[in-house]
Amino acid sequence: MAGQTFQALPGFRDFTPRECAVRNYLFDTWRKVARRCGYVEYETPILEDTGLYLKKSGGELSSQLFRFEDQGGRDVTLRPEVTASLARIAAAEQRAYPKPLKWFEIGQCFRYEKPQKGRGREFHQFNVDILGEAGPGADAELIALAIQTMQSFGFVQGDFVVRVSDRNAWVKFAEARGVTEEAMPDFLNLVDKLEREKPEVLEEKLSKFGATLTEVNDFVANPEDAEGTFQEILKDLQARGLGGFVELDLSIVRGLAYYTGVVFEVFDSTKSMRAVAGGGRYDTLVGTISNGAVDMPATGFAMGDYVIRNLIEETPHAAMQMEVWLQRNAAGCEAYMVIPDPAMRGEALLLVTALRNAGIAVDLPLSDAKVNKQFQAAEKSGARFAVIIGEEFPLVKIKVLASRTEESCEAGALVDWMLDRLMEPDGPLIA
Amino acid sequence: MAGQTFQALPGFRDFTPRECAVRNYLFDTWRKVARRCGYVEYETPILEDTGLYLKKSGGELSSQLFRFEDQGGRDVTLRPEVTASLARIAAAEQRAYPKPLKWFEIGQCFRYEKPQKGRGREFHQFNVDILGEAGPGADAELIALAIQTMQSFGFVQGDFVVRVSDRNAWVKFAEARGVTEEAMPDFLNLVDKLEREKPEVLEEKLSKFGATLTEVNDFVANPEDAEGTFQEILKDLQARGLGGFVELDLSIVRGLAYYTGVVFEVFDSTKSMRAVAGGGRYDTLVGTISNGAVDMPATGFAMGDYVIRNLIEETPHAAMQMEVWLQRNAAGCEAYMVIPDPAMRGEALLLVTALRNAGIAVDLPLSDAKVNKQFQAAEKSGARFAVIIGEEFPLVKIKVLASRTEESCEAGALVDWMLDRLMEPDGPLIA
Repeated sequence: MAGQTFQALPGFRDFTPRECAVRNYLFDTWRKVARRCGYVEYETPILEDTGLYLKKSGGELSSQLFRFEDQGGRDVTLRPEVTASLARIAAAEQRAYPKPLKWFEIGQCFRYEKPQKGRGREFHQFNVDILGEAGPGADAELIALAIQTMQSFGFVQGDFVVRVSDRNAWVKFAEARGVTEEAMPDFLNLVDKLEREKPEVLEEKLSKFGATLTEVNDFVANPEDAEGTFQEILKDLQARGLGGFVELDLSIVRGLAYYTGVVFEVFDSTKSMRAVAGGGRYDTLVGTISNGAVDMPATGFAMGDYVIRNLIEETPHAAMQMEVWLQRNAAGCEAYMVIPDPAMRGEALLLVTALRNAGIAVDLPLSDAKVNKQFQAAEKSGARFAVIIGEEFPLVKIKVLASRTEESCEAGALVDWMLDRLMEPDGPLIA
Repeated sequence: MAGQTFQALPGFRDFTPRECAVRNYLFDTWRKVARRCGYVEYETPILEDTGLYLKKSGGELSSQLFRFEDQGGRDVTLRPEVTASLARIAAAEQRAYPKPLKWFEIGQCFRYEKPQKGRGREFHQFNVDILGEAGPGADAELIALAIQTMQSFGFVQGDFVVRVSDRNAWVKFAEARGVTEEAMPDFLNLVDKLEREKPEVLEEKLSKFGATLTEVNDFVANPEDAEGTFQEILKDLQARGLGGFVELDLSIVRGLAYYTGVVFEVFDSTKSMRAVAGGGRYDTLVGTISNGAVDMPATGFAMGDYVIRNLIEETPHAAMQMEVWLQRNAAGCEAYMVIPDPAMRGEALLLVTALRNAGIAVDLPLSDAKVNKQFQAAEKSGARFAVIIGEEFPLVKIKVLASRTEESCEAGALVDWMLDRLMEPDGPLIA
């Protein structure tokens, strides 16, 4: 062990104050928009019984698990996603809540993947779900939230698009060609690969399902002719003034097996990145997880923190909005106390406490230091004001650090003076 | 697998919306008070190299680890505490920040313990640290934050007490009796057990260190005679008006080996519970973790979410403050749209979007329902207003649900009407 220096594990991130502030911007925006749309927050355990994930998803996810045996011999897994836990909790708790449940969650998930741009071994996810409502009004409400989340980050029409599809349209397409229920997942997986697989391979594989590539491409090219509920969803979103963000795109089917109806993905307009968010209906999952005890239709989506952050940083108006937020929220303090004479430290401490009790973020030197050092510390702290507790006390001098102008007030009136100044429209926010 | 119903693992919690709101109350209060006192937020990985914990703490913690081998053959551990990671990050990043670093963190830790009241296998922790300042001004600043955190939860003098001690006082006591540096940890561990071990056992064990139980008890009984920096800390806290919350208590030495000086614990006044918070100086840890690359004095404390929640719930004035917060923050929405005629759904959707864009939390029925069902949903939603989009449109009726009075306004003026009403002093907060 001697000589070893420790680092974060590959694919894991240290959130230094600057990085943590960016994370908080994402979290605050997610939380704010979800609450405005009537969703309430929940959280699930980071660690779960492995069976919960094996039962549900299978496929790719099950090879990416942080899975181990705990000290009690249990087969446990760091959650790779949240929907399985949500289904477990919703099945157990749904009676205590009016329907539909509109729930959101913000938390970390873990997948053992190759770390690369836009992907780590841990990531934060914004999960939003509506449970207990089968109609297209729920799908539209959910997609509206996805759009308003993007708008809340400062994105405008032209920056992103929501591609909406309906698995049921493909199921009907396939059923008309004699595809059985058992073969349906394989057929949908094939459609999921339309944009990634070579035409000759697709043609051969489609022939096994009694379809041709031309038929499939025609179906994708004319989504408005396909049977599906997305026309109703589109009409709903148009009534909200959000129709322009949506396009029907039957090439979207989503990877996971549990989706049952309308599915959608959010992409940047140039499609230069992975999907920013994705989701859809999973009407049978709660029944599966609860062993049939609770049958509850559901729809939901998730947005990870990696891709949205990249997209914000590469979109100037969204990046600028984030910068403004960071400057207003990430500063260590609003005011910094300068104490020229150490004998006055007691007076300064009392004022510090009064300011903090009033909700004003204040810092001070923690040991005796020369006055110019203290002013340097005030500048570095990001504070707007340096408050000087000097020989004029109980008069205190206040230096506005940006303009280098000086004002003064009675010590007993400092809290009110400061509150007034911080309430000015361009002032920093109060903690 | 068939027939299995899943539950959270023993010692792990599901945060349903009600539980999550309580969690958020703790988080918001912690975050608010830390920011006011000039601390900035950071976060460390949930999963770390196991060596990081073995190097530092040893002892009890190392038997309680959720430790496993990842898919890449790494020996990894779910973090049992945050200070080791903080020391790792601070050593690597400290050059980019002015000193002292005043950093806080709110996150989950994991220890394989027997679940019981006040203790689970996961818990949330509020970690606050000052790095790069060796003087007692830092210890006082940190203890002041611990006190102001308690005050922010509504606790007043008489509800809790901070017991402050100094390991160096015991080191000097022991050195005067010839205790060597190597034997010092064992001696301090013995002092840590003063209140739990039988007198005859203590007497025998103390004799090996050249001390008697009477000498030890006299030392504890007269802390003001002991050499230590706590007199300076007390003077600082008195200047802040916080002296009444503190008592010197040399029986506190804290369990972990890395503490080097002033240590303290926060207790409810009746001492009926485990410590609410605890911490102290760890001047050598950053050097140890960084293999001597960075030498940085430090002090910090942690507060877990289990004990503080129990204490809030058992203290009426603190519990009432939490209830008020929950009522103002946990409601799903402020207004609920009632749509008697489904043909008016489009008009309702446009208003919903306008209200949400203005920051007002609004909900609506997601499928057609009878009017009385819609009013029931409005009541259950916790909304203050039901907005009726009826045949008088573009005039909309607004029912104040608490008073059952009715008002009305033009649809185009609804956002302003609602903002005015929600800004009233007793109104709910806007998301």
